[in-house]
Amino acid sequence: MITVLCGGVGGVKLVDGLAAVLADPSTLTVIVNTADDWEYLGLSISPDVDTVLYTLAGLAGDERGWGIDGDTWTALEMLKRYRLPTWFRLGDRDLATHLARTQWLREGRRPTEVTAALASALGVVPRVLPMTDARVATFVSTPAGRLPFQEYFVRRGARDPVTGVEFEGIEHARPSPEVLDAIRSSAVIIIAPSNPVVSIGPILALQGMRDALSASAALRMAVTPLIGGTAVKGPTVEMLRGLGMRADSAAVAARYGRFIDVFVLDIRDRALRDTVAAAGPPAQPPAVECADTLMTDPAGRRRLARALIDIAARHGIEVAATTA
Amino acid sequence: MITVLCGGVGGVKLVDGLAAVLADPSTLTVIVNTADDWEYLGLSISPDVDTVLYTLAGLAGDERGWGIDGDTWTALEMLKRYRLPTWFRLGDRDLATHLARTQWLREGRRPTEVTAALASALGVVPRVLPMTDARVATFVSTPAGRLPFQEYFVRRGARDPVTGVEFEGIEHARPSPEVLDAIRSSAVIIIAPSNPVVSIGPILALQGMRDALSASAALRMAVTPLIGGTAVKGPTVEMLRGLGMRADSAAVAARYGRFIDVFVLDIRDRALRDTVAAAGPPAQPPAVECADTLMTDPAGRRRLARALIDIAARHGIEVAATTA
Repeated sequence: MITVLCGGVGGVKLVDGLAAVLADPSTLTVIVNTADDWEYLGLSISPDVDTVLYTLAGLAGDERGWGIDGDTWTALEMLKRYRLPTWFRLGDRDLATHLARTQWLREGRRPTEVTAALASALGVVPRVLPMTDARVATFVSTPAGRLPFQEYFVRRGARDPVTGVEFEGIEHARPSPEVLDAIRSSAVIIIAPSNPVVSIGPILALQGMRDALSASAALRMAVTPLIGGTAVKGPTVEMLRGLGMRADSAAVAARYGRFIDVFVLDIRDRALRDTVAAAGPPAQPPAVECADTLMTDPAGRRRLARALIDIAARHGIEVAATTA
Repeated sequence: MITVLCGGVGGVKLVDGLAAVLADPSTLTVIVNTADDWEYLGLSISPDVDTVLYTLAGLAGDERGWGIDGDTWTALEMLKRYRLPTWFRLGDRDLATHLARTQWLREGRRPTEVTAALASALGVVPRVLPMTDARVATFVSTPAGRLPFQEYFVRRGARDPVTGVEFEGIEHARPSPEVLDAIRSSAVIIIAPSNPVVSIGPILALQGMRDALSASAALRMAVTPLIGGTAVKGPTVEMLRGLGMRADSAAVAARYGRFIDVFVLDIRDRALRDTVAAAGPPAQPPAVECADTLMTDPAGRRRLARALIDIAARHGIEVAATTA
């Protein structure tokens, strides 16, 4: 069993690569951030979960990072005519996902069950788990005020300096039983190259999650979301800096601290090996490994997935992969 | 001011004709049945109101009687993939209407206000009023059980014999202030050729509606929904028979009783003139007029509208129409 903790965009590329190279993709579990879930036009929208589902179902475009490739905008054009806000771009097929989720939640199913039903209908083989069944909502503090995450991220294009991040509801949110079970029974846990603040941050901040990770016998790896001090996509660097942190792999390794055994640095940053190791907890510094973490195409996703499987093997955990 | 009471399909053709021939279409008010409103996938759907709006906006197909002409089914195909019921055919553009209505109702606006906002966005000039702001729901009793109206009408194709009709909530439902005002201030009130049981029935059954109609100084006309003992479309005849009524114009005239001054019979049924007059209340028998009520095309809609304007003139009410 391999379990990946991830948000949208960046992390999901690695998930996609793993699903492609694992001999049995059903041994893959993905724990997905849901702190940027929100309600829009009465629809329960779970952007990161949907990105994971669409990607694993082969429905996502390679680079846009959200929605369904080739989706149409017929309903959206009509919503525009009704002068409803349309900055959150709901495609017609995507809309059906939100209608289904909203309907099933209204019927009393847990987000975990709803996600499983969506995944099954889309033919997704790996197990996709929302990080919690509780409601958590990310807000960011900016000079323009305190903004719900999607307002900051989508509507305003992630251009506001972020001076604070809050996960509303996190103090009452526990990982779902399915998430705890996956953490407990995994041989390898991978923190994906997602935004460490707003994607991985909420997952690690769930009540009991750090204890579960500490107690896990798995090999725990984290993949850097930064290459040469910049993020491939998204506001990771600006966000880390705004929160008063250094924006480099060492700061990310320090952030994950004692929850990781291995930190995977990008090969272009191999000179930072010692700095990163030193950033970990003194009593338990992470092993630092290097890999090409830039996933510019499906081959790049698979290449990184194979590299992680090789790293796991070097640390004594054998994972069955397809032959390249 | 002309006010029309109507349901979907049949009645809306007359509304369309009137909007086309009135010199000033803004003097037209349409009071629309909302007892077949329902909630589907969490969306507040108002089928008759939408049919009126789409028709007056020039968006409806000529003959289908629901939805938007040329609408696409992209979301619906995806809903099918999620194995959600798709017998209620939601087009992509139509879906936006339901999302807008649902959103605005959730914000606390009255159905009357929501309808006005939709009408304004669609460029509809006549005033479209839901019959009430209260919730009324039609159920029909059939050998297959007691069915919500849309289950009977759409899902099961109106094929079940109907042995009873209930309007749930009608005992607490009053016409909106706007509806009462329209009734009070109209010179002509027309009961459209809609199903007298499930379309006109709920409007007349609203608390205070009969009093308002009785007190109105308007010329009150009803147009037969039946020609030669059959309905142009829909289960009117089967429904009247199932409820133990005769299925002819005389029975309809009797049903509208003292709320009408003029009953407009189809010209093909002119032999029934005396029977229809005799079916009215003895103290106040309706004047019976004949017109071609078959509206097979837009010209037919306009022709009937002009005929009603002529009939009103013969009864002393002048309505300004465009020249043919």
